[in-house]
Amino acid sequence: MIIIMKMGAPREEIDAVMRKVEDEGYKTHPIFGVERTVIGVIGDDREKRPGPFERMPGVERVERVLRPFKLASREFHPHDTVIQLNGHAIGGEQVIVMAGPCAVESRDQMTEVAHAVKEAGATVLRGGAFKPRTSPYSFQGLGEYGLKLLKEAGQAASLPVVTEVLSTRDMPLVREYADILQIGTRNMQNFALLTAAGQTGRPVLLKRGMSNTIEELLMAAEYILAEGNGRIMLCERGIRTFEKYTRFTLDLNAVPLLKQLSHLPVVVDPSQATGKWDLVAPMSKAAVASGADGLIIEVHPNPSDALSDANQQIKPDTFAQLMQDLRVLAPAVGRTI
Amino acid sequence: MIIIMKMGAPREEIDAVMRKVEDEGYKTHPIFGVERTVIGVIGDDREKRPGPFERMPGVERVERVLRPFKLASREFHPHDTVIQLNGHAIGGEQVIVMAGPCAVESRDQMTEVAHAVKEAGATVLRGGAFKPRTSPYSFQGLGEYGLKLLKEAGQAASLPVVTEVLSTRDMPLVREYADILQIGTRNMQNFALLTAAGQTGRPVLLKRGMSNTIEELLMAAEYILAEGNGRIMLCERGIRTFEKYTRFTLDLNAVPLLKQLSHLPVVVDPSQATGKWDLVAPMSKAAVASGADGLIIEVHPNPSDALSDANQQIKPDTFAQLMQDLRVLAPAVGRTI
Amino acid sequence: MIIIMKMGAPREEIDAVMRKVEDEGYKTHPIFGVERTVIGVIGDDREKRPGPFERMPGVERVERVLRPFKLASREFHPHDTVIQLNGHAIGGEQVIVMAGPCAVESRDQMTEVAHAVKEAGATVLRGGAFKPRTSPYSFQGLGEYGLKLLKEAGQAASLPVVTEVLSTRDMPLVREYADILQIGTRNMQNFALLTAAGQTGRPVLLKRGMSNTIEELLMAAEYILAEGNGRIMLCERGIRTFEKYTRFTLDLNAVPLLKQLSHLPVVVDPSQATGKWDLVAPMSKAAVASGADGLIIEVHPNPSDALSDANQQIKPDTFAQLMQDLRVLAPAVGRTI
Amino acid sequence: MIIIMKMGAPREEIDAVMRKVEDEGYKTHPIFGVERTVIGVIGDDREKRPGPFERMPGVERVERVLRPFKLASREFHPHDTVIQLNGHAIGGEQVIVMAGPCAVESRDQMTEVAHAVKEAGATVLRGGAFKPRTSPYSFQGLGEYGLKLLKEAGQAASLPVVTEVLSTRDMPLVREYADILQIGTRNMQNFALLTAAGQTGRPVLLKRGMSNTIEELLMAAEYILAEGNGRIMLCERGIRTFEKYTRFTLDLNAVPLLKQLSHLPVVVDPSQATGKWDLVAPMSKAAVASGADGLIIEVHPNPSDALSDANQQIKPDTFAQLMQDLRVLAPAVGRTI
Repeated sequence: MIIIMKMGAPREEIDAVMRKVEDEGYKTHPIFGVERTVIGVIGDDREKRPGPFERMPGVERVERVLRPFKLASREFHPHDTVIQLNGHAIGGEQVIVMAGPCAVESRDQMTEVAHAVKEAGATVLRGGAFKPRTSPYSFQGLGEYGLKLLKEAGQAASLPVVTEVLSTRDMPLVREYADILQIGTRNMQNFALLTAAGQTGRPVLLKRGMSNTIEELLMAAEYILAEGNGRIMLCERGIRTFEKYTRFTLDLNAVPLLKQLSHLPVVVDPSQATGKWDLVAPMSKAAVASGADGLIIEVHPNPSDALSDANQQIKPDTFAQLMQDLRVLAPAVGRTI
Repeated sequence: MIIIMKMGAPREEIDAVMRKVEDEGYKTHPIFGVERTVIGVIGDDREKRPGPFERMPGVERVERVLRPFKLASREFHPHDTVIQLNGHAIGGEQVIVMAGPCAVESRDQMTEVAHAVKEAGATVLRGGAFKPRTSPYSFQGLGEYGLKLLKEAGQAASLPVVTEVLSTRDMPLVREYADILQIGTRNMQNFALLTAAGQTGRPVLLKRGMSNTIEELLMAAEYILAEGNGRIMLCERGIRTFEKYTRFTLDLNAVPLLKQLSHLPVVVDPSQATGKWDLVAPMSKAAVASGADGLIIEVHPNPSDALSDANQQIKPDTFAQLMQDLRVLAPAVGRTI
Repeated sequence: MIIIMKMGAPREEIDAVMRKVEDEGYKTHPIFGVERTVIGVIGDDREKRPGPFERMPGVERVERVLRPFKLASREFHPHDTVIQLNGHAIGGEQVIVMAGPCAVESRDQMTEVAHAVKEAGATVLRGGAFKPRTSPYSFQGLGEYGLKLLKEAGQAASLPVVTEVLSTRDMPLVREYADILQIGTRNMQNFALLTAAGQTGRPVLLKRGMSNTIEELLMAAEYILAEGNGRIMLCERGIRTFEKYTRFTLDLNAVPLLKQLSHLPVVVDPSQATGKWDLVAPMSKAAVASGADGLIIEVHPNPSDALSDANQQIKPDTFAQLMQDLRVLAPAVGRTI
Repeated sequence: MIIIMKMGAPREEIDAVMRKVEDEGYKTHPIFGVERTVIGVIGDDREKRPGPFERMPGVERVERVLRPFKLASREFHPHDTVIQLNGHAIGGEQVIVMAGPCAVESRDQMTEVAHAVKEAGATVLRGGAFKPRTSPYSFQGLGEYGLKLLKEAGQAASLPVVTEVLSTRDMPLVREYADILQIGTRNMQNFALLTAAGQTGRPVLLKRGMSNTIEELLMAAEYILAEGNGRIMLCERGIRTFEKYTRFTLDLNAVPLLKQLSHLPVVVDPSQATGKWDLVAPMSKAAVASGADGLIIEVHPNPSDALSDANQQIKPDTFAQLMQDLRVLAPAVGRTI
């Protein structure tokens, strides 16, 4: 931590800050500059908010030196985390594709989709049974029955399943069915849920909050890691900006950045991000080209009749075509699919 | 709902869309314009996402006509909601001030603060026992013991208390102590929690998500209202923007807008919004001048030693001075304090 | 400047960075921490971008210590700048109100408005003759004829005038007519225009770019100050965020922040910011309560027929009522109007 | 245009709105819905702001039906615009790569870079002679001498050149040297400059404003097109968001969207967008995979000594490696390079 004093802060104020820093168990290292004094604070300050010092007389502001995440960082864990699942390695050479409908709606829908995406080359089946909806009047998902249909379809097609868990209350139920637990964008800072997901030991697909920074995403992963669960996929799914033509702004810059800062695999969700089915294919390709370890794509047998997010789901044949295109693209960036 | 067809969309496509609209139980009303056809959809479409139609051939986009919220809207409930609490009316002529520390830390701290804010004119005591923290290494709150200290201090000073509930799991516990349940910014779209809060019948202080629109805030209120609980205060607490000098950007425009769109009282949190103690006073005054029905302000006996958000809490004497200033200001906008 | 080295950066890399810093004429001051080394750079680094050092092997990132603005800062100019204009002091006790139509449209319109706002208590007349419009098909302003009408109306009502200058090409013309030169939000980083405005010596109303930070606004002022022109009013006029119910988000937090960081007067434009005429009054009051030194408000005799921004202009009688309300409010925050 | 009336708006108000619409030369088409009346307005309303009607009694809001751009739209110009330049076709099968330093600094620098990027496969040489800088204390470019050096280096390497023009004042000078005129992000809504660029007939690289929507970018192109100049490249270069780890957020979603909405070629600038040299390669690949027609990349022989933007420029050998990677990637998405 670096404490920047105000211009002309008198010696007593500088001394008072240094005393307080030392009282808290850190070493100080003042630098007397031309215009102002800067106090270097030596020690691991990850648990310390810069606030307390900012309030002291003569202090202008405080800058942190250390990134606040540790277990999620590549510095402390240089090698890539690879998650083994059903014979596939997530975070290795292969780009993993998770596909399926936004929401589980019926047995027929799930059976049809599961076989279609399996045949096209998907490695995980997705489907929501508990749906977070902006409006209380919208379809909220089939709940446990949805989980059963999802699991059944996954087993029939030999695909592990990923599904969202919305609250700690549902965790025991969802973990019975889910091979991968999804923490959605609205829950990225639901810390009780993160802790509960950490305790299951189950692989977690952790979606970036729609208005959360990359640093906050890594801090959310830190909550899960702190429970001893390192099987985490970080998922970029679009952030909120002023642009209105897309539902969110898919921030692909996050992909290479997360790969630099962290050892965890990175997955991209072009369906949720863009909210437009005809942007899913180009953004999937862009995601793979940017270095993503996986994709999660919404596929529905008949999107126009979907009970949620109709506009962003693609049809099985569009998905099959995309997978074919990705099989051509992936080797051009040193990956398989 | 208005369905805007693409330029040159052929008659068959227009007919297909109209048939589908009618199949869903709405009436259609086409307008054949110069460049394109527009189809008016007649009926209450609040439960219908525009998606399905956007996917049909020839459709360019869909615009909703109705605001998606109903119970929270002034159209359906023209008169101001006034919440009675402990002899005070929230949403009436008086501007209500809730004050207290960010986090409950100790009995001494709470006793000191409770009496100080009471004496200065606060009408509700605030204090967090369950704290949502970006880092798992930060102080997470005292939990139930914190609730007890809060309640005890509130009773000693004859102040009702407001405190945050972080998850459905904690709801039964928190509702035992809280006179007002606070739903925090990170949980504004935690729909299970909203529903649970609705079921308690307890007054709810619903904070705007840091990246949620005003419409989404009203939809979150709609979840609580749908459970039969109309005792909701909407709280503007800063949104996330590109500006870095403040922690968030306090969006005071939301105050008069929410008062137009909804009948619910509106409270402003200048402490969380700005993250800077020396902006709390000017933004509190601005909030009252903009028409806010209440304020929630962080007050700590010794901010430099605070276990969380040290930089945004004000001291009891600064708070007393602010209350005095507000007592001068409020009548100038037709309010009391 | 503080250079933060990577964890485990070897001694040679640290030495190389220090050599380069010293080669550039600064003194170095290394701090060897627990996890990493930090190098303090002593000297005025305002002209130095942190870039060059960030590229060196072993460097993780660079943090600046000094704010990049100097002439605009309160540190180097502690006393408030007060701009004398036509017997009024901008930046003093009185809150200055500039009012008039978005665009100059006709002699009748200007005469009517000028007298109305004068009578209601405005101290400056506004009106655009060169209009920046998103669409080339929209009304672009009356140009020089508009300037003439504006000036004529201002003289008839004994009001100085403020009007926007869009390009260096128009500067000689506009400065002939304008008592205050307005630099609009789209031109805040039109550096040639800033320099030209600086050279006129004329008072400048500098509007914050709709996506510019407070720091960038002060840097834009620095361009004008660097030409020897210190008669600058900083104007908050709304920033671009994800919120869609308002045209922009008026960031009133900027008012007290700018007053802390700078000695320049601060003006607020609630008309442009909100884009809604019925938010102008509450946000004007909030602006004054937050500490603004002035307001600029769009007033049109018949907004429904306005050639631009019809939705945000208020009528003369609404303006008169607002002025009356502000005359009650201002003393409550220690100001006059 | 669709005018949505308030719930319960009386017949007189509806009639008044309809009369006004008809007075302005449009046809009306009312739809009497369950909760409210909607008035369809028939006619080309591109030149009409929705404002005037929004002010009328009983009107809730106004929604536009037509996109406001016309000449830039694919609807009115279905076939791709292909710009011929120096034997290359921009907007055709080949992905065009423009490369060179952020700023022209010296003859040696330009000669070295020009040959290096030519050899690696670039088709246009970039270099700034007039630099828009946030701080007046930063290097502002070499001006005309810089233009000469750029042109000279381009000719020696047989590369056409692209360079930024900052103001109408400089236009005659810059057009003498530039094969492509660049309008920078801070000038996207400098309408005088857009018009002047349109009048030159020269190809224009139009960068998206850092806080401008895709629609506003197309409206800016419309200004140039309205002058009869259709040789425009739209350039995505990052938008301003809350994320702080990157300088801007490169919005690749804009690429397929712009290709859908418009016939103009789309270029991506990963250097300016990310502000980090080590993100340039992954984001360049992602841009090509998303469908970009071109890239503009900052290459400097010795970035650590660069006079501007040192942190985002790549070295010639990194650029050569990237070009090699892109030559492998491009065919996988049906392009050459």
